[in-house]
Amino acid sequence: MGSSIGKLFKLTTFGESHGSMIGGVIEGCPSGLKLNIEAIQSDLDRRRPGQSKVTTSRNESDQVQIVSGIFEGITTGSPIGFLIPNKNAKSKDYSNIKDVYRPSHADYTFDEKYGIRDYKGGGRSSARETATRVVAGAIAKQLLGHYNIDLAAYVCSVGQLEISNKIHDIDTIRAKASLNIVRCPDEEAAEKMIDLITQVKSKGDSVGGQIFCVINGVSAGLGDPVFDKLHADLSKAMLSINAVKGFEYGSGFEGSKMLGSQHNDVFENKSGKVSTVTNNSGGIQGGISNGQPIYFKVAFKPVATILSPQKSINKKKENIELKVNGRHDPCVVPRAVPIVEAMAAIVLIDHLLRNRAVKL
Amino acid sequence: MGSSIGKLFKLTTFGESHGSMIGGVIEGCPSGLKLNIEAIQSDLDRRRPGQSKVTTSRNESDQVQIVSGIFEGITTGSPIGFLIPNKNAKSKDYSNIKDVYRPSHADYTFDEKYGIRDYKGGGRSSARETATRVVAGAIAKQLLGHYNIDLAAYVCSVGQLEISNKIHDIDTIRAKASLNIVRCPDEEAAEKMIDLITQVKSKGDSVGGQIFCVINGVSAGLGDPVFDKLHADLSKAMLSINAVKGFEYGSGFEGSKMLGSQHNDVFENKSGKVSTVTNNSGGIQGGISNGQPIYFKVAFKPVATILSPQKSINKKKENIELKVNGRHDPCVVPRAVPIVEAMAAIVLIDHLLRNRAVKL
Amino acid sequence: MGSSIGKLFKLTTFGESHGSMIGGVIEGCPSGLKLNIEAIQSDLDRRRPGQSKVTTSRNESDQVQIVSGIFEGITTGSPIGFLIPNKNAKSKDYSNIKDVYRPSHADYTFDEKYGIRDYKGGGRSSARETATRVVAGAIAKQLLGHYNIDLAAYVCSVGQLEISNKIHDIDTIRAKASLNIVRCPDEEAAEKMIDLITQVKSKGDSVGGQIFCVINGVSAGLGDPVFDKLHADLSKAMLSINAVKGFEYGSGFEGSKMLGSQHNDVFENKSGKVSTVTNNSGGIQGGISNGQPIYFKVAFKPVATILSPQKSINKKKENIELKVNGRHDPCVVPRAVPIVEAMAAIVLIDHLLRNRAVKL
Amino acid sequence: MGSSIGKLFKLTTFGESHGSMIGGVIEGCPSGLKLNIEAIQSDLDRRRPGQSKVTTSRNESDQVQIVSGIFEGITTGSPIGFLIPNKNAKSKDYSNIKDVYRPSHADYTFDEKYGIRDYKGGGRSSARETATRVVAGAIAKQLLGHYNIDLAAYVCSVGQLEISNKIHDIDTIRAKASLNIVRCPDEEAAEKMIDLITQVKSKGDSVGGQIFCVINGVSAGLGDPVFDKLHADLSKAMLSINAVKGFEYGSGFEGSKMLGSQHNDVFENKSGKVSTVTNNSGGIQGGISNGQPIYFKVAFKPVATILSPQKSINKKKENIELKVNGRHDPCVVPRAVPIVEAMAAIVLIDHLLRNRAVKL
Repeated sequence: MGSSIGKLFKLTTFGESHGSMIGGVIEGCPSGLKLNIEAIQSDLDRRRPGQSKVTTSRNESDQVQIVSGIFEGITTGSPIGFLIPNKNAKSKDYSNIKDVYRPSHADYTFDEKYGIRDYKGGGRSSARETATRVVAGAIAKQLLGHYNIDLAAYVCSVGQLEISNKIHDIDTIRAKASLNIVRCPDEEAAEKMIDLITQVKSKGDSVGGQIFCVINGVSAGLGDPVFDKLHADLSKAMLSINAVKGFEYGSGFEGSKMLGSQHNDVFENKSGKVSTVTNNSGGIQGGISNGQPIYFKVAFKPVATILSPQKSINKKKENIELKVNGRHDPCVVPRAVPIVEAMAAIVLIDHLLRNRAVKL
Repeated sequence: MGSSIGKLFKLTTFGESHGSMIGGVIEGCPSGLKLNIEAIQSDLDRRRPGQSKVTTSRNESDQVQIVSGIFEGITTGSPIGFLIPNKNAKSKDYSNIKDVYRPSHADYTFDEKYGIRDYKGGGRSSARETATRVVAGAIAKQLLGHYNIDLAAYVCSVGQLEISNKIHDIDTIRAKASLNIVRCPDEEAAEKMIDLITQVKSKGDSVGGQIFCVINGVSAGLGDPVFDKLHADLSKAMLSINAVKGFEYGSGFEGSKMLGSQHNDVFENKSGKVSTVTNNSGGIQGGISNGQPIYFKVAFKPVATILSPQKSINKKKENIELKVNGRHDPCVVPRAVPIVEAMAAIVLIDHLLRNRAVKL
Repeated sequence: MGSSIGKLFKLTTFGESHGSMIGGVIEGCPSGLKLNIEAIQSDLDRRRPGQSKVTTSRNESDQVQIVSGIFEGITTGSPIGFLIPNKNAKSKDYSNIKDVYRPSHADYTFDEKYGIRDYKGGGRSSARETATRVVAGAIAKQLLGHYNIDLAAYVCSVGQLEISNKIHDIDTIRAKASLNIVRCPDEEAAEKMIDLITQVKSKGDSVGGQIFCVINGVSAGLGDPVFDKLHADLSKAMLSINAVKGFEYGSGFEGSKMLGSQHNDVFENKSGKVSTVTNNSGGIQGGISNGQPIYFKVAFKPVATILSPQKSINKKKENIELKVNGRHDPCVVPRAVPIVEAMAAIVLIDHLLRNRAVKL
Repeated sequence: MGSSIGKLFKLTTFGESHGSMIGGVIEGCPSGLKLNIEAIQSDLDRRRPGQSKVTTSRNESDQVQIVSGIFEGITTGSPIGFLIPNKNAKSKDYSNIKDVYRPSHADYTFDEKYGIRDYKGGGRSSARETATRVVAGAIAKQLLGHYNIDLAAYVCSVGQLEISNKIHDIDTIRAKASLNIVRCPDEEAAEKMIDLITQVKSKGDSVGGQIFCVINGVSAGLGDPVFDKLHADLSKAMLSINAVKGFEYGSGFEGSKMLGSQHNDVFENKSGKVSTVTNNSGGIQGGISNGQPIYFKVAFKPVATILSPQKSINKKKENIELKVNGRHDPCVVPRAVPIVEAMAAIVLIDHLLRNRAVKL
């Protein structure tokens, strides 16, 4: 279990970091969508390793191959199977960690659970799996585009550096975040972030960060009132991304410090359109979208792979000292931006389809 | 859809705030558990309204009636159906909000989604539904107890007041948090919190807060490595509770500001037992429990119902002014403590049962 | 697990034969349906025990109480919780079978699986559970009625007596099958069937039978092409009814004896409407409805409870002789007619709702 | 939706008949199984086209490529992704049916549902998809083997020719059914069946048939008592196979003609082992296996593709005459034997894993 997400638009993924390929199957993609393959590839390119000096030097072209579910370029409603070959897998890099458990990695827990693990490059637990999410997310985005729903994410913090005024305008985000390799739309902050990552990298260390995401054009009604609240499903989707430690939407943790009289979002009819004066609700009330922009923030821990020696244990549970080589990201957030967008898009299209069934 | 949670231990709930009753069905409760009804009732009593001056004055005894799935006091593996009558529903309190949408409530979104709503007491969107979760959670706790898993939650902040040193010892939490009506194990902080809530209440306002939860005794191996990561399912479960705005586990948002060399949890074999020197991972690595204590934090917004007049709109989308009466909580966190525990227990027992299927 | 059915329109049931009540929760019932409670009760009356001389003498009024999900008589999209009290449970009838396993009952298998069982009246394995399906089915029928889908089932055989020309016209079925207690629309055959059941009953024996079901008004497009074929879901639903041994649709087992040139249903456009000249497909091709009437047949074994002494074993696995008392049906098919209809309606409305998600 | 089956052992399939490949993902395969690839290939060879004169002349080697989920030959608990290339797809064969709806095929219904279809070789609706089921089934069989569960299917009828005494001994079935191309363990009957199919083929016609399946070694306890009865899930799995029209288990339709006193399976303790004197229950009572052999029968219609001219309609809904070329099976049952086995194995291993969660 556990390699599927979604109820009506459902993604199932497979593949290990250093196997021949990774891939996925999308069930429930509606028929009639003219698929834009370039747009999928473009999102993969934003996620792919080796794209800049702030990312791992593993170099994967990540060319997606769609093998089913489209006919003459158009989705048929059948499962969309897709494959991404692993080309630059250097498995020998990992021979020295075959019998040891790297701190804060999934090595130990995977072995405890299954009794066996593909240790090469992290196997199934590697963030490489998220490339398949980006494919499904890119298709989900195209479906959402059909319904005028648009979304964009960006890096809002690296380490202690956080931009104070979050940017909510999607056009601005898209225009400015693509200008720098750290994907932060605040130019000045971006430079500092890049400096910080470069510094951290030079020390063989890593650093965490946060991603902010905005979704526009969601009409009122998506999400369920009880367990499958829209933000609950967004939260699960975000926490399912490797290295994520926290999620908040709308006012988030800050909101817990406020008074109701400050926090409430007053409704108003402005020239025939219902909106709210403030948006502490982050576009979701009682689990259901209210037509205002949805926004949320996701916290990523520093990547567990660092190059300095660390104490640890081996498979025999003996205390050892460990030195990891291999190619890794000094900071995961720049490459995680398209992953956050992908998971958000998957959740939204699933709820959009589910919402079709709720009225007579 | 959307009134069920869990894959093997599955809770389905039903009922509106001011209907004759609320209730639920638990599928997948293993056979052979001698059910402690008093323990269930005791958790319900911790959640029930009218229990103290910092909660709503609606007075519900919340007596649970279990109508199936047990035989001579022992679970049979059959669905456990249970009912909680609504006794103190004062529906006339709500007649004045029949055609208006209260700010930051689910009134507007529910109507937009379904085209009809039970406006009495919030109907299906009322936090009254969470009483049914407490029943299922109390049963889940008893199952977990059988496997020596224990958990406890407490209020760690109200408004701006947050205790800085989180208490992680469950015995201490349980002993001290039960001593005060705000359920905070730090006595001094608790008094300040109670003062703050009393003040806020006297002004007809409300205030947010946060809850901290610790889980002990989870052996390594619970949780799935990809989408159904243990913390991802915990996060969804928490965000599905009314008024929750954020979730973090382990180092959480603070962790995103750290370096890998600070954040990594070094393994060590201490007298034959594997543990980690630090626990920034919050007991979960790669989505799977590692045998260390699990801990997480949940942020609640201030309750949307306040007694001062607010602007809003009505069903015709006309701008109006609104004054709400009725009985409501000035701060939701004291009563939310058993709900957080319940949802955590439901997620854990579900993953414990799922984990039985993973090896040959 | 296993007390739920359906993906979007989902029924979860609970309750034992001799507990205080049985009940269910329907998730995913669309909002906006004015519920006809009398129609629900009417279907329950067709299923209820004690209705005629060919059924068990257990006398249950089976009054359904709907406790959630409707507001001022209209469905709100929230879960519909409902209860049916067990009034005439004579538990003492069963004390003598507490420690024995009745042949061809679920006593032995339930005990082997769960290690404990509610032996009173068959507990969870009793066909009494099907009363809750009839409630959900009656609601499903009302939803289907909104989309001009109509269905009816009837008894087409009892023991060796089978009517050769199956009646496919729903109006005729409805008019004629309600005229006799065996629910067979062929008057002459009905009389013989009643005689046979009466004879069998007088000997303390039981007899099997078959039910035929016709569904009209299903437009082309319901059902999925691979695993969730419409007939596959119908088959599972039928086989989930107590005592069912077989299912066939369209040409069924006879179809396996035919040539393709005899069996193929030739399409034709008749005055602008696509139809088929024959209907061996039973209205379903490739798992998807084709707009023609759907029809299928369900085989029921003779009820396992018979009054003559039988050999068996007890809980200690010792060979014993057993004599069962208690009140039981000599032939289950007359009361199973509304159950077959209910399960068919549940499958259809589920697929109708699912079908809304398949196109852009 | 609808390209997945199973709850814990779950197969998701993708691919069209004439695309570059078909494939699947198996979630929930337990870790620790040393995979026998030859055994998988051997089952594929039993299903593959072009194997004999009674099957289609399309020639596919059906070489399976497993791309994930195993490490050094052993399953890791991660999803098993696999691919089967389509090599001998002659798409030009189908250009003449691009705009027409073949009688009793899925062409019309697929188009009505999705508005678009891959007409080449039947696209997603082609029985070619079942090759992926055979892969998953072969893995399921190996898992079952670990628990000493064994199963075998065979052809018991072609057209009007049915063997009267069904063979229940698996060794005999396996030894004898492999001796002839029609996979019937009754030599004499097999010859007649082959003659019949050859005759039918020479006329460009097709003929239906039936398959009988026996499962040994299932201990008591598999299956759920209500909706997910073991036979209900078997039935759905069988009806999900292309061309299947009916399912019966144990006494089946004949059972409906019997008296309870004839039909009941009396328990007995024979030298310390519980068994039943007869096995009309087909090894399942109340939806749960009772430890006796499970057996069932599946009816297949004649293949819809025949070579004689037929009336039909085209996409514009105009009446036309149609002549199909292409390579097709005159009788589907010989190749369907491993498919029936595969689906049975998938259902059984899923229930075996589910059964681990039912007791404390």
